[in-house]
Amino acid sequence: MDRMLYGGDYNPEQWMEDPRIWEDDIRWMKEAGWNTVSLGMFSWAVLEPREGEYDFSFLDAITEKLYVNGIHFLLGTPSGSRPAWMSKKYPEVLRVREDRVRILHGGRHNHCYTSPIYREKTTQINRELAKRYGAHPGLVAWHISNEYGGACYCDKCQQAFREYLRNKYDNDIDRLNHEWWLTFRGHRFGSFEEIEFPNLRQLPNGLGENAVHGLTLDFRRFVTSQTIDFMKAEIAAVREFSPHVPVTTNLMDIAQDLDQFRFGEELDLISWDNYTPWHNGTPMPQLAAEGAFNHDLHRSIKRKPFLMLESTPSHTNWQTYNKPKKPGVNHLTTLQAAAHGADGMMYFQWRMSRGSTEKFHGAVIAHSNRTDTRVFREVARTGKTAERLCELTGATTKAEAAVIYDWENRWAVEDFWGLHTGYGKETKKYIQTCLKHYFPFWQNGINTDVIDRRSDFSPYKLIVAPMLYMTDRETIEKIKAFVAQGGVFVGTYLTGEVNENDLCWLDGFPAEELKEVFGLWGEEFDVLLPEETVRVDARGKSYQAVDFCEVIHPDEDTEVLATYGEEFYKGTPAVCRHHYGKGTAYYIAFRDEGAYLSDLYGELIRETGLESAVQLPLPEGATCHTREKDGKRWLFIENYNDHPVTVTLKKGKYTDIETGETYSDMIELEGYEVKILVYGQ
Amino acid sequence: MDRMLYGGDYNPEQWMEDPRIWEDDIRWMKEAGWNTVSLGMFSWAVLEPREGEYDFSFLDAITEKLYVNGIHFLLGTPSGSRPAWMSKKYPEVLRVREDRVRILHGGRHNHCYTSPIYREKTTQINRELAKRYGAHPGLVAWHISNEYGGACYCDKCQQAFREYLRNKYDNDIDRLNHEWWLTFRGHRFGSFEEIEFPNLRQLPNGLGENAVHGLTLDFRRFVTSQTIDFMKAEIAAVREFSPHVPVTTNLMDIAQDLDQFRFGEELDLISWDNYTPWHNGTPMPQLAAEGAFNHDLHRSIKRKPFLMLESTPSHTNWQTYNKPKKPGVNHLTTLQAAAHGADGMMYFQWRMSRGSTEKFHGAVIAHSNRTDTRVFREVARTGKTAERLCELTGATTKAEAAVIYDWENRWAVEDFWGLHTGYGKETKKYIQTCLKHYFPFWQNGINTDVIDRRSDFSPYKLIVAPMLYMTDRETIEKIKAFVAQGGVFVGTYLTGEVNENDLCWLDGFPAEELKEVFGLWGEEFDVLLPEETVRVDARGKSYQAVDFCEVIHPDEDTEVLATYGEEFYKGTPAVCRHHYGKGTAYYIAFRDEGAYLSDLYGELIRETGLESAVQLPLPEGATCHTREKDGKRWLFIENYNDHPVTVTLKKGKYTDIETGETYSDMIELEGYEVKILVYGQ
Amino acid sequence: MDRMLYGGDYNPEQWMEDPRIWEDDIRWMKEAGWNTVSLGMFSWAVLEPREGEYDFSFLDAITEKLYVNGIHFLLGTPSGSRPAWMSKKYPEVLRVREDRVRILHGGRHNHCYTSPIYREKTTQINRELAKRYGAHPGLVAWHISNEYGGACYCDKCQQAFREYLRNKYDNDIDRLNHEWWLTFRGHRFGSFEEIEFPNLRQLPNGLGENAVHGLTLDFRRFVTSQTIDFMKAEIAAVREFSPHVPVTTNLMDIAQDLDQFRFGEELDLISWDNYTPWHNGTPMPQLAAEGAFNHDLHRSIKRKPFLMLESTPSHTNWQTYNKPKKPGVNHLTTLQAAAHGADGMMYFQWRMSRGSTEKFHGAVIAHSNRTDTRVFREVARTGKTAERLCELTGATTKAEAAVIYDWENRWAVEDFWGLHTGYGKETKKYIQTCLKHYFPFWQNGINTDVIDRRSDFSPYKLIVAPMLYMTDRETIEKIKAFVAQGGVFVGTYLTGEVNENDLCWLDGFPAEELKEVFGLWGEEFDVLLPEETVRVDARGKSYQAVDFCEVIHPDEDTEVLATYGEEFYKGTPAVCRHHYGKGTAYYIAFRDEGAYLSDLYGELIRETGLESAVQLPLPEGATCHTREKDGKRWLFIENYNDHPVTVTLKKGKYTDIETGETYSDMIELEGYEVKILVYGQ
Repeated sequence: MDRMLYGGDYNPEQWMEDPRIWEDDIRWMKEAGWNTVSLGMFSWAVLEPREGEYDFSFLDAITEKLYVNGIHFLLGTPSGSRPAWMSKKYPEVLRVREDRVRILHGGRHNHCYTSPIYREKTTQINRELAKRYGAHPGLVAWHISNEYGGACYCDKCQQAFREYLRNKYDNDIDRLNHEWWLTFRGHRFGSFEEIEFPNLRQLPNGLGENAVHGLTLDFRRFVTSQTIDFMKAEIAAVREFSPHVPVTTNLMDIAQDLDQFRFGEELDLISWDNYTPWHNGTPMPQLAAEGAFNHDLHRSIKRKPFLMLESTPSHTNWQTYNKPKKPGVNHLTTLQAAAHGADGMMYFQWRMSRGSTEKFHGAVIAHSNRTDTRVFREVARTGKTAERLCELTGATTKAEAAVIYDWENRWAVEDFWGLHTGYGKETKKYIQTCLKHYFPFWQNGINTDVIDRRSDFSPYKLIVAPMLYMTDRETIEKIKAFVAQGGVFVGTYLTGEVNENDLCWLDGFPAEELKEVFGLWGEEFDVLLPEETVRVDARGKSYQAVDFCEVIHPDEDTEVLATYGEEFYKGTPAVCRHHYGKGTAYYIAFRDEGAYLSDLYGELIRETGLESAVQLPLPEGATCHTREKDGKRWLFIENYNDHPVTVTLKKGKYTDIETGETYSDMIELEGYEVKILVYGQ
Repeated sequence: MDRMLYGGDYNPEQWMEDPRIWEDDIRWMKEAGWNTVSLGMFSWAVLEPREGEYDFSFLDAITEKLYVNGIHFLLGTPSGSRPAWMSKKYPEVLRVREDRVRILHGGRHNHCYTSPIYREKTTQINRELAKRYGAHPGLVAWHISNEYGGACYCDKCQQAFREYLRNKYDNDIDRLNHEWWLTFRGHRFGSFEEIEFPNLRQLPNGLGENAVHGLTLDFRRFVTSQTIDFMKAEIAAVREFSPHVPVTTNLMDIAQDLDQFRFGEELDLISWDNYTPWHNGTPMPQLAAEGAFNHDLHRSIKRKPFLMLESTPSHTNWQTYNKPKKPGVNHLTTLQAAAHGADGMMYFQWRMSRGSTEKFHGAVIAHSNRTDTRVFREVARTGKTAERLCELTGATTKAEAAVIYDWENRWAVEDFWGLHTGYGKETKKYIQTCLKHYFPFWQNGINTDVIDRRSDFSPYKLIVAPMLYMTDRETIEKIKAFVAQGGVFVGTYLTGEVNENDLCWLDGFPAEELKEVFGLWGEEFDVLLPEETVRVDARGKSYQAVDFCEVIHPDEDTEVLATYGEEFYKGTPAVCRHHYGKGTAYYIAFRDEGAYLSDLYGELIRETGLESAVQLPLPEGATCHTREKDGKRWLFIENYNDHPVTVTLKKGKYTDIETGETYSDMIELEGYEVKILVYGQ
Repeated sequence: MDRMLYGGDYNPEQWMEDPRIWEDDIRWMKEAGWNTVSLGMFSWAVLEPREGEYDFSFLDAITEKLYVNGIHFLLGTPSGSRPAWMSKKYPEVLRVREDRVRILHGGRHNHCYTSPIYREKTTQINRELAKRYGAHPGLVAWHISNEYGGACYCDKCQQAFREYLRNKYDNDIDRLNHEWWLTFRGHRFGSFEEIEFPNLRQLPNGLGENAVHGLTLDFRRFVTSQTIDFMKAEIAAVREFSPHVPVTTNLMDIAQDLDQFRFGEELDLISWDNYTPWHNGTPMPQLAAEGAFNHDLHRSIKRKPFLMLESTPSHTNWQTYNKPKKPGVNHLTTLQAAAHGADGMMYFQWRMSRGSTEKFHGAVIAHSNRTDTRVFREVARTGKTAERLCELTGATTKAEAAVIYDWENRWAVEDFWGLHTGYGKETKKYIQTCLKHYFPFWQNGINTDVIDRRSDFSPYKLIVAPMLYMTDRETIEKIKAFVAQGGVFVGTYLTGEVNENDLCWLDGFPAEELKEVFGLWGEEFDVLLPEETVRVDARGKSYQAVDFCEVIHPDEDTEVLATYGEEFYKGTPAVCRHHYGKGTAYYIAFRDEGAYLSDLYGELIRETGLESAVQLPLPEGATCHTREKDGKRWLFIENYNDHPVTVTLKKGKYTDIETGETYSDMIELEGYEVKILVYGQ
């Protein structure tokens, strides 16, 4: 791509009755600096109004109009929403819910991913689209389907799940009985045909097992696998006629139930839809770090630039309270994507629809059909900046620190019963804990990757693995090798409990040789009630443990960095450091709300030689990120406070890409301001 | 009717085993001043114990006994609860739930309103009843069924819904596709047969669409329409043999899901069941105004006197906490109905049943079967007052102010997603907002109508239309005409967003020429979190906006009455006034909790020349209402405080109908007291 | 039994792959003082891997190994969890849920209790087990199934329910119509075949009646009855080949939905699973009293020693927060069982399973497979004490006070609508109220039975019957006789409202002659909002009523002990005392949070001559209990505080069974300490 993509979702088929609207659209997109739109994700009912009858006239017309006006497009495959005639004629395309009820036609993102007929129908329409537009010069990428998600519980999917298990367990039901530990409560199976989908909602006496965690885990893996299998069929259909155009799909944030790392292999380009809930009452810096974590994760999937494919220019319509972005915030949060490695910054949506559920979702053009609005002005301002970022495309992010966020680990942590119990996901707080461990890196302006346990560990000096409960044999080996070769590895309470099938490691935790890496073993857990805390003492300071306190026994050569100051384990270690090979392993046995992590990681950043691009400390709520290409470096300095801050630059000459102004010492940012500086050539 | 109806629900069929109970009942009803009972709503299983076999013996006996003792009766048609043999033999009479499961026999108010068999069975029993009792001199009115409500999702209803849509959209599926804006998300239908009921619960991936608001809205209209269609069949059956007896049905309060204004045309007499939750922790004056709003609405349906057909003499049994009415409160709240235009004040129920769910619902006679109880004494006291109100029957209420409460608007407001989101009804607060705008009129003792947008606007000087989001072409014309001809019209944020199918008006809001009426256009909305407020400045005073702040642009000739004092729209208008034709339009762009409304409406009441029957200000928590007939006027002064208040009368001579005492200056009321004065002949 | 059973659940079949684990188990059990295990409750899939093919090899081996090492066993019948092949081949064995959906295979405790096939299959396996192990010298008792519970809604169960009703109502549908008061709302049935299961969840328009309380109550009775009927079939199968070995089943706590008093007749030995939620934030003494109440109830079922068959040695895994027991607490709470009459103190579980839902439930041996842990040490310490309690087995508890906790009454109270409404069980607080009335007896160290209304009243001097809403004819007679013959009986608000079918007594409450016993009648109820209280004055002190205030009218010879100090019933009686025959009846008309009960029961204990084994007052949070056999007495003094207390002994010589130390005056206990003293020979 030779330009920073700037634009968003566009639904011209909604406005075919009034040709003036299309004219307004194109003219105003150009005023707003839009160079790219996403088209067609919801056009199937228009493109194939009756089975096998295609009508591409609107798409022919609009792609032409856009192209001659210099606006390119991603073209969606329409599998996210099928025509009503299809559901009526072929009910098997409709998803079956967990309660085994087949849904009625309606909604979106709810097809059966196994149905042969649905695969055939999507293949047909995708081939037609690829034949017709696959070589269009305005086509930037294929936008495969839309926000894949959810699961189907039909009989065809049930059979596919049994096949999946047969493959995984070499058709040996006793291997499965062992890995899922089914002798427990007399749950052994006699054949794969006896296996039913699990009951994820964990209702007693429900439909299927709610307590066999190996089953639940394999089912979640199957859902990701079958979703990708469906996507591969879609991709194959477009590649047949459009082999050189990149394919992408819009992934979601880290709360999504699909393991997004697994999509990397199949896609040319990673995209995601960014709906960070700005102004929801959470402090802006915390929200910004959450957005940053998501950006970093999506960049890390392929360790390449990515697209932010959706984001609202103003407000959403699905939160409990849908606040518009305050002045300046759209500019800041849109460029945040570029700061973290995006080569495209796109919105949902160009124009509010007149009716139905999203008619009040934020858009560049509201029902008033005017451009003398705050939202339009702010979007157009960012458009100007986007133009100045052409050269940035392809620039990479150099990160020497990484935080592990692992979907399979999350599933296993959220499911297990005990300690904080598995009935409700909320009490385990895996996601929140990963974000808390990430925050000090964000606050210190350190480029950081977000990887999973299967990612390559070799690029990093420091890896943080919060609550890495699931450590299979391969992960144990990787951690050993990483530390032995000089890496710094930070683990926490709950590390190394189970293998990849949620089967506990025997002989104590952390698992197997991780005891040697960390230099300790764990005896038991205390769980704190929400109103309880336990004092932790470290280097003359006091901290507060919440939620979890693990009681651990250090080896002789293990240093105790912090001890518990209360409770029946008073005086026992709360944090340990252990040298192993050329590296060092840290073990944090308690849950901290941030104060201890800030102190510890601040120190580790200094000791490990991780570098921020500016002088530390950064003002609270401000941060910086860098990208580089061909020896040129871009420095993004971002202020998520509503008040001004001053940042101290490192030695050098920095040029503001918007104003051309140069800086060499201090730089002042207004509230919610972002500065983009180039330097280092 | 020649007497104020006083009495209530009576279920003598429960006590056939013990004839002494009937004797007690009749004797004690007379002691309590009861002149009317409601009979038979739940008697079907007794009247037709086996299919086609009728046994009217108990009804013959009790109607005779009542009549000779001077007690008249409303006779219920029993469709609210069918015999068990019918459900067993004809399952189609049982309702199908939204999840498409047919219910089992049991409960009440849960028949299929489309089933031909159920219509036939109800027609048969209604004809039998009308033949037998239709000319009985004690028969006051037909009580058609009981508390109609709910919806059925069976195939027959599904087909009826499709027919309803075919009729509405002239059999043109593309008109429907347009009005429901179905090109959005590719939801266009190819034929009416593809349409399924919506999923009202808005569950993702549920049974049917949860996000096509045009569909949802038409479905809600269909439910009202089909309920009325069923009721018309019931009425036709009784009118065949009893053409001169008025028909009524007991409607519910404003939270009910049926559009009660639509019932007016089919009924001779409007009734409603008043279960205002007295003593639930909300201040009594607020509860009283809520009750008043409901009374006014039911009076306004036909602009005629109505009946309060149910109310508890003591406590209910279905609230979380069921407190008995404190001493005096039953008298006050029962006469409140008369104050607002009721010609009948009835209770549920005479006698507590011995078993089942309502055995502990308040009643005049408890299980103890005694009359030396507080409840009996209080009911009998009000009975004495009721006797003195014979002449009041037929007296009308003169109201020059009206508040619009529109069911279709409520449905549309509660459904839309965005701003405060549509997931939960609670956050939109349409009902609560209407009540808040009504309260100042109540507090100032102004007779007020509660109308919908289709009502005649011509009788009023002042119309208040809170959150009138839905303004179809006809409503726009009515508002224009009303203001042009000299009316004062008050609109608020959210006014004029959509047409009757929830399709947004283009070119900005408020819709179409309403921009000219109000002299402004709206750009965007701010939504406040529950913990946020925004200052509003008006005439040297400060108020606090909550929930919603609309950012508006006034025309040049528009007066700004209040401005925002904070946020990014600081200094922009929060309230505007605009002269249009001979009238004036006010636009309140923010949500106020009451203080601003109190000040504004106090002023408008003075300016518009609306008159209270007493000297203002009234003491807080006290109010007054008037009725008039043949030049005679009744003044009800009501004190909802638990302490005494003094009210200043206007010049005149006022006679207390109970004591004969006369007043001309001040009148003192005890806590929870009501005074009824006649004057003006 | 000749020794105090000490041990717990053991699942050796999970570890067949690794024979070293069994070796460790046996060796370490002996170190921990275990003499008994529970085996086989979840072994069916291993014992009968294919239909009719049995494999007892693991059970043969482990029973042998245990026995030769001096460890005995309870042998479970495996009906709690069936093999997967059975569900596949005979779907009728799977339970049908209340929503009429048949569950899928999975989970446990979810068979149809009516299915002839399931009864046949369980009979077969039970006979095989009894044949093979029924005469094994190590077999202590048969452990029939596991934690029976829940209900099935299949057609076979529906028919069984109709048969149950036919029997109860002598095949006369009109008797049922009367008892369930079905003329109310026209709900009369024409035949038993028309009756459907009730809808217990009380959803409107749901599956079946939600408001016919007679139906609901009979259904709950049926569930207990059918569960016992299934259990009897299980017992018959084992007794055929093992007639001399006692049978038991593990009952649950008082929140369980089965009427556990009904199990007494069928079992030789009562057992229960004690999962009192220690350390859940509730003060320890309150939790201890709750545990005590459960122990006392299970002892009272047969008025004989019982077993605590399960309890956790550390933490559970199913609470919201699962805290481990603090040091000392396991010892204290395990011996609490013995203090209240247990002849066995057993744990769940010996060893944590490697996978599935209970892998993190507390156990003696954790995944680390070590014994140098706090949990192991504490369990072994209690094992030593258990050895010293051999002689205690068979010792009985002498109780002269009793609290009535009646399951049928609870069901009726929780279901009725009115006062605090029946929608949610929480607001009625029957269980909590029973516990509050029990607490003063616990705090005063008085041995107390917990009985139901059908129990023998004759052993007691004092009976407390909180909220005894249900008083059938027989109960009325029993209360009359008890008081007439000199007993002290305490009733409260809500006493004596309905008969055994929830049909209200007429002529006022309390029912029938109870008005004469208590010397009063009740007129009405006030219900207080959570934020409201009403002052109650008694003997110069003030107390606070919450939730309920009944307005009562005393007879002339009734003493008023307390009066209301506020509200419209100010000055009327809140507590009355009335002499009847040789005895006295107390009536507490309001709900008290504890202060009044503490004062009143303190006085009644003195006046009635109930004796604590130590000098009163006991320190707060400490208590004592006694058992006796052959003239020897054991005194358990228990301190549930985390700090030391001193208890004053009565005259005598007391010997500590652990240390041999003797005491005669004061005895000091550490925090969480229990002392067991023998005396009195």
